[in-house]
Amino acid sequence: MQKNVIKDPGLAEEGEKRIEWARRHMPVLQKIKDEYEKEKPLEGVRVVACLHVTVETANLLTTLVAGGAEISVTGSNPLSTQDDVAAALANRGMHVYAFYGENDAKYYECIEKALDIKPNVTLDDGADTIATIHKDKRDLADEMLGGCEETTTGVIRLKALADQGELLYPVMAVNDAETKMMFDNRYGTGQSTLHGIMNATNFLFAGKNVVVGGYGWCGRGLANRARGMGSNVIVVEVEPRKALEAAMDGFRVMPMIKAAPLGDLFVTVTGDISVIRKEHMDLMKDQTIICNSGHFNVEIDIKALEDLSVKTTEIQKDVVEYKMKDGRRLYLLAEGRLINLASAYGHPPEVMDMSFANQALSVRYIAENGPSLEKKVYSVPAEIDQRVARLKLEAMEIEIETLTPEQYEYLHSWQIGT
Amino acid sequence: MQKNVIKDPGLAEEGEKRIEWARRHMPVLQKIKDEYEKEKPLEGVRVVACLHVTVETANLLTTLVAGGAEISVTGSNPLSTQDDVAAALANRGMHVYAFYGENDAKYYECIEKALDIKPNVTLDDGADTIATIHKDKRDLADEMLGGCEETTTGVIRLKALADQGELLYPVMAVNDAETKMMFDNRYGTGQSTLHGIMNATNFLFAGKNVVVGGYGWCGRGLANRARGMGSNVIVVEVEPRKALEAAMDGFRVMPMIKAAPLGDLFVTVTGDISVIRKEHMDLMKDQTIICNSGHFNVEIDIKALEDLSVKTTEIQKDVVEYKMKDGRRLYLLAEGRLINLASAYGHPPEVMDMSFANQALSVRYIAENGPSLEKKVYSVPAEIDQRVARLKLEAMEIEIETLTPEQYEYLHSWQIGT
Amino acid sequence: MQKNVIKDPGLAEEGEKRIEWARRHMPVLQKIKDEYEKEKPLEGVRVVACLHVTVETANLLTTLVAGGAEISVTGSNPLSTQDDVAAALANRGMHVYAFYGENDAKYYECIEKALDIKPNVTLDDGADTIATIHKDKRDLADEMLGGCEETTTGVIRLKALADQGELLYPVMAVNDAETKMMFDNRYGTGQSTLHGIMNATNFLFAGKNVVVGGYGWCGRGLANRARGMGSNVIVVEVEPRKALEAAMDGFRVMPMIKAAPLGDLFVTVTGDISVIRKEHMDLMKDQTIICNSGHFNVEIDIKALEDLSVKTTEIQKDVVEYKMKDGRRLYLLAEGRLINLASAYGHPPEVMDMSFANQALSVRYIAENGPSLEKKVYSVPAEIDQRVARLKLEAMEIEIETLTPEQYEYLHSWQIGT
Amino acid sequence: MQKNVIKDPGLAEEGEKRIEWARRHMPVLQKIKDEYEKEKPLEGVRVVACLHVTVETANLLTTLVAGGAEISVTGSNPLSTQDDVAAALANRGMHVYAFYGENDAKYYECIEKALDIKPNVTLDDGADTIATIHKDKRDLADEMLGGCEETTTGVIRLKALADQGELLYPVMAVNDAETKMMFDNRYGTGQSTLHGIMNATNFLFAGKNVVVGGYGWCGRGLANRARGMGSNVIVVEVEPRKALEAAMDGFRVMPMIKAAPLGDLFVTVTGDISVIRKEHMDLMKDQTIICNSGHFNVEIDIKALEDLSVKTTEIQKDVVEYKMKDGRRLYLLAEGRLINLASAYGHPPEVMDMSFANQALSVRYIAENGPSLEKKVYSVPAEIDQRVARLKLEAMEIEIETLTPEQYEYLHSWQIGT
Repeated sequence: MQKNVIKDPGLAEEGEKRIEWARRHMPVLQKIKDEYEKEKPLEGVRVVACLHVTVETANLLTTLVAGGAEISVTGSNPLSTQDDVAAALANRGMHVYAFYGENDAKYYECIEKALDIKPNVTLDDGADTIATIHKDKRDLADEMLGGCEETTTGVIRLKALADQGELLYPVMAVNDAETKMMFDNRYGTGQSTLHGIMNATNFLFAGKNVVVGGYGWCGRGLANRARGMGSNVIVVEVEPRKALEAAMDGFRVMPMIKAAPLGDLFVTVTGDISVIRKEHMDLMKDQTIICNSGHFNVEIDIKALEDLSVKTTEIQKDVVEYKMKDGRRLYLLAEGRLINLASAYGHPPEVMDMSFANQALSVRYIAENGPSLEKKVYSVPAEIDQRVARLKLEAMEIEIETLTPEQYEYLHSWQIGT
Repeated sequence: MQKNVIKDPGLAEEGEKRIEWARRHMPVLQKIKDEYEKEKPLEGVRVVACLHVTVETANLLTTLVAGGAEISVTGSNPLSTQDDVAAALANRGMHVYAFYGENDAKYYECIEKALDIKPNVTLDDGADTIATIHKDKRDLADEMLGGCEETTTGVIRLKALADQGELLYPVMAVNDAETKMMFDNRYGTGQSTLHGIMNATNFLFAGKNVVVGGYGWCGRGLANRARGMGSNVIVVEVEPRKALEAAMDGFRVMPMIKAAPLGDLFVTVTGDISVIRKEHMDLMKDQTIICNSGHFNVEIDIKALEDLSVKTTEIQKDVVEYKMKDGRRLYLLAEGRLINLASAYGHPPEVMDMSFANQALSVRYIAENGPSLEKKVYSVPAEIDQRVARLKLEAMEIEIETLTPEQYEYLHSWQIGT
Repeated sequence: MQKNVIKDPGLAEEGEKRIEWARRHMPVLQKIKDEYEKEKPLEGVRVVACLHVTVETANLLTTLVAGGAEISVTGSNPLSTQDDVAAALANRGMHVYAFYGENDAKYYECIEKALDIKPNVTLDDGADTIATIHKDKRDLADEMLGGCEETTTGVIRLKALADQGELLYPVMAVNDAETKMMFDNRYGTGQSTLHGIMNATNFLFAGKNVVVGGYGWCGRGLANRARGMGSNVIVVEVEPRKALEAAMDGFRVMPMIKAAPLGDLFVTVTGDISVIRKEHMDLMKDQTIICNSGHFNVEIDIKALEDLSVKTTEIQKDVVEYKMKDGRRLYLLAEGRLINLASAYGHPPEVMDMSFANQALSVRYIAENGPSLEKKVYSVPAEIDQRVARLKLEAMEIEIETLTPEQYEYLHSWQIGT
Repeated sequence: MQKNVIKDPGLAEEGEKRIEWARRHMPVLQKIKDEYEKEKPLEGVRVVACLHVTVETANLLTTLVAGGAEISVTGSNPLSTQDDVAAALANRGMHVYAFYGENDAKYYECIEKALDIKPNVTLDDGADTIATIHKDKRDLADEMLGGCEETTTGVIRLKALADQGELLYPVMAVNDAETKMMFDNRYGTGQSTLHGIMNATNFLFAGKNVVVGGYGWCGRGLANRARGMGSNVIVVEVEPRKALEAAMDGFRVMPMIKAAPLGDLFVTVTGDISVIRKEHMDLMKDQTIICNSGHFNVEIDIKALEDLSVKTTEIQKDVVEYKMKDGRRLYLLAEGRLINLASAYGHPPEVMDMSFANQALSVRYIAENGPSLEKKVYSVPAEIDQRVARLKLEAMEIEIETLTPEQYEYLHSWQIGT
């Protein structure tokens, strides 16, 4: 393996401090780590992790190492790597290929290097390593036990791959676990997206028209949090049931072309491309802010923005002004990359605790069941999902109700009626 | 067929007025009715409908009649029949066996009479006719095309029946359609339960501790609406993922035994029995109000309440005071029957519009596909579900976003990444 | 004094039951009653009470009687009198002149009769007795100790009177006590207005555009409660600071003429006249619902509605359809009178408990200080206001923080800085 | 005057960029600046500004300069100065004495230097210059026209001074303007406090118990925003009416000693000292976070925290761990100084726009009326307050309703009743 590609090894100490702070807020993962240290279920497992290199990821990877795994790490987004964390991971003996501000070429170069470990498990956040293997490194698939995918975006890609019969090894859709999707996507993206926007702009949410593209779990979380901060939220959605739900939740619902002239701030979380396009930019007000919190930086048509503008200026970190011919100024945040990771710390550790507990338990599941799995996209088993919820409730010191035997029986009978 | 069993035919005119008011607020059902009038897809179909006899139900049944069906109606709860509606339906030529304030014996007598129609489709709201057929009228199952079930409670019963291999004919779980469950159970039960409680007690929600038993769709709706009225809500739930969701939504979560001494008002919406028991009643404060909005009046252990009390007094309509030995007074609303139907009008017509659109389209689906279906519980096909959402959005004059061809393609490809 | 003018003395028993239920939810007033029974501070005081004749009012008046007062009662709105309560009050020995459904002539006739008691204190809810005295019975002012006014509307009238130097005796603006205005107007009107609308129409709030005229305490409460039920709320307001507050609270703010074509439901709570006029009605959608929860039925220009319509039909109790020339149907609720009293029970007793505790203590204040007061509008003294809050918190079993001596001193010093 | 005391003049360019970004979000102040440039109402006025040295303050001071004033600037908190802004202001020709991380001695030294300008107007944010003048520089009071005070805390100090008859010159309580207090204190502190906490800790608000000390405008804003992010909020308050309001708003209300063992996060915004004391710290859970968003760092008894702990560690920027004898770890943020300024950018410019518009107009008011004012604490005139609201609504492109002549007349008459 090549030596690490990181910004500055000297940042390790700072990284360690922050990783420790996160560790204290990830009690579920901590319990699993204790278990893994004793049982060593991952001996001989080589994992390539293409994840946002954050303090929470550091704790996931350390859990896998505790279980006996060998780890190779690369970032899952050019702007999300925390360089101090990358340094700390290298210091802990992992192979690390990630630094903040990679360009796209460097980004894929890092993935290639990380794959030199010859992994038998892939961890993805956006399916970039799986896609790389399927495009350029198909021989690696032979020894593969399976993969885990963390995002809605990635699951969409993998299902497309499976539908076309081209998936080369089994993958767990960790994203779709209830304890991942309903918590990480909703509460995590909801809060951290607002946080990123505040850091970049010090935007006052109260009294503003905020347009949210997408009303999946991310969009639901985001719309509710923005309302909780006093914004008047407009939802743009294509699926009729979700659109109806947004309306019933009290939001205005309309197509993007109608929302374009109304919004003070636009945030996309759809998992699709070109959600905000030229025809929308043409209608926006002066000083409109545009950003994305979906996985890839494709949701805003940045090319169109560049074509429309006569001048671009970096106003401050993560804020670029695009001046239109008619004098209007549109502000694009963080180059359209996910604002919560680019301008804030990503999801709080308590949320990642649950998502990564699903990851850690799914890696074990793959290690133990991989050879018998088919080449398709699997759900996380309900037992894993419920176990994560129980561990989390325990950590929060929340006790819940239990069914009496009589209640249990009633739920499984049909005779008793009016 | 025997002649109708209703309270007073003279109430028909009043009923007609109210049915017409509801009709105007059920545009989706109206569109389906127009279609059915032209296409007559239900000719020769005999339907027994064991539903809450309300103005909304009247519009569902009239839609089925427009499609050619013959209808026999009975109530699905002794306290939910609106006598003026029963009279109007009789007037419109249906067979009606329902009146407000039936006792349990009369209730089942009415079901039996309704079954004299020799139905080939059953519509249930709590599975009472299906259960009756399975217990006492198994021969009726032979000519049956299928059934529809409207409630969580009923679906639980039917799945128990199917799991035991004893289900005699196919049933559509209309309850589980997204456009039913997420709207009717959430927004409908949420609002109408508060309405029923206000009518019975003029309870001020602001500043009160409200304990909600169950955090399914009904419980979610109820907890949110109570908070929206200023209550401090405590959630009691057995499923860890739902309990965790409630906590993350900002509610206090605890077992009923801990909530018992804190609540000013308790509402159960679990679908299970004996959710509030003797040990809880023992701990409640003086003047605590207890009620139920789940389908059956089994969620509160009324027998225990009677055993504990030294005196019962009807304070006013739908409010009975149980005086405990220690002087505490507990108030039970509407005999523990669903408070939104007993003390208010049930769900608003706009909500029932969607639920009943699913019903109307499912009856047609059964009429057309019944013979080829297996004896199991079916989901409502996604096409029906989405069609209902689309029709509803149209009626609300809400336009939604549409995918561009490029976006559609992206969602079905896997190559494009970072 | 003439004998009582009430609907039916036989309703007294029903009224007594309901008054008792309210009494149990008015613990603050109850404590004051206990005190008054011992101290008899109102001996020789003759009170004319022009108030909504509800179960809560019954408890206020009974408190005054306990203090030694003689009472004459008349309704403060033709549609708000609860006939069973009127009967019960007569039964308790008060002079009662009020029945549900009075016309305007009868309404003023009742006020005149009530004044035969030759009051030295007036209690008003809209200033109608005070206005009557100032217009037609100026001699009564000579023996008057003072008056109390319960509503924003009434206080507006009285300040106009005082500003013109024409006020004949001192009046306490009970409405403006914090424990009245911020609670009764906000939480009381908020909840009970929704309750009245649900009773009249079974309107589903979720997903609807609700236009609220006025963002005073009533409007704030109403807008928040409607949002809490899932509505998308639009606020119409004339005062720039209030309008700005509404915007910052996340509501859309616009002039009525812009809101007119958007609303599904309009509610006025401004205290002003003709808030909804011909030009607005011209733009409203088919099936729009219009109602008022401000004190007088002048906020909607009913005359304009009649002029515009070609036909009116009573759809059901409290709902009249006005058919426009172009076929649109507008629904007016409760003849434009306050919907929470006409179609529901008015404010819950817990809220009225605080308002009426202010009333009861203010009557004593007038009895003790009246002769030394000037002919102007007085605020309720802060001590009364805070005492009401303390008694209420005690009744709710809520303990609050207390200042340490050090903290108290700090708040009264200026030396300590950074 | 001595030369500037700032961190690094080289930061000026960075500061200019950020000041310009803020300027674009302060349209009201901008309008006033345009007016001042033309009318020059502040010629000859020497202002000492003891304010948080932020981008928003920079725009206020530039507005005053436009009006002809000469400015001397010092920070109003040792941890709130933004060094790039200080550099930019020096560059713009003001006298600047402020840098991030001053100790208390340096802090007061800077105030003294700033006073060398011999001001005739003082602008304070916490009353530190006024207090300094009253303690040590009483001769400066002779030429003083007046002062402006921005905070609740400062107004408390000044009223104490005035009550004792010791105030040496007139002061405008800018804090108490509705367009300041209800917006800055509520929406500004609400959002920016959460922002600071997220920056320092990446705390997940959803599902956490957040204890808010104080339910004034700051506390109301903070409690609502925390709830909007999914927290379960507990309010601690001494004033019974405010405590009752908090309860009616759906929050739990209790004394600090009861809240101490429940909270995951404590935030104080009372304006008083020692709100969190030894007896509370003794009861807190392991890993509890404590911070302050009130003006002075006296709300948390830091001395007690130090006495209780056996070891302190800086975990990361703005987070210090205090290890208790029993092993519990308490985290104090930003040394107990206002978290929104220490760990975030303070209030968003849109909010400061209104507060500082009041400041700018109040300085003019003092310049024009100072000699005729008494030595007391004045309210901002309603005309200024309403003008600020109108300008803000215009900037937000929100049009509001206007009274018809008939409506205006109605509001000023008393004859029209039922």
